[in-house]
Amino acid sequence: MGWSSQTIEMIGYAAAFLTTVSFVPQAIKALRERKMAGVSLHMYALFTAGVACWLAYGFMIGSVPMLLANLVTFVLASIVLVMKIRHG
Amino acid sequence: MGWSSQTIEMIGYAAAFLTTVSFVPQAIKALRERKMAGVSLHMYALFTAGVACWLAYGFMIGSVPMLLANLVTFVLASIVLVMKIRHG
Repeated sequence: MGWSSQTIEMIGYAAAFLTTVSFVPQAIKALRERKMAGVSLHMYALFTAGVACWLAYGFMIGSVPMLLANLVTFVLASIVLVMKIRHG
Repeated sequence: MGWSSQTIEMIGYAAAFLTTVSFVPQAIKALRERKMAGVSLHMYALFTAGVACWLAYGFMIGSVPMLLANLVTFVLASIVLVMKIRHG
């Protein structure tokens, strides 16, 4: 169809940016409030493992953007996971 | 380095599977318990918007796996977002 490669690339960058930074407010909230009741332990266990796989994948295919984005997400998701384990 | 393309592909599929299904337990927990205090509204607002961008990106580049994985994630993240808006 009629999308320019620039438009497609911009949407890709917006997607990567939004899904990566989205974990910042959740990590901050977890560290500040330590109220973890509604947060699913299973979600963060599976998600953190998944992001570790994306990290390995990005490394193996030599993609620096994937590596960086998933490194940030891995750190943030790990914070939430640890806070959930500690504070239930 | 010495990874086969099969190994790399398998890790990619594991990554996609884990990060997609991880939202299933969070959505179920939200629907069952309706205790959303620890869940960040900002996270799910940003994340759902980001996944919508990934969905558009997958559609534009014609990637069926990206479309399917992000469609599932979009539905699950939207459930969590709506439950957070309704039940605080």
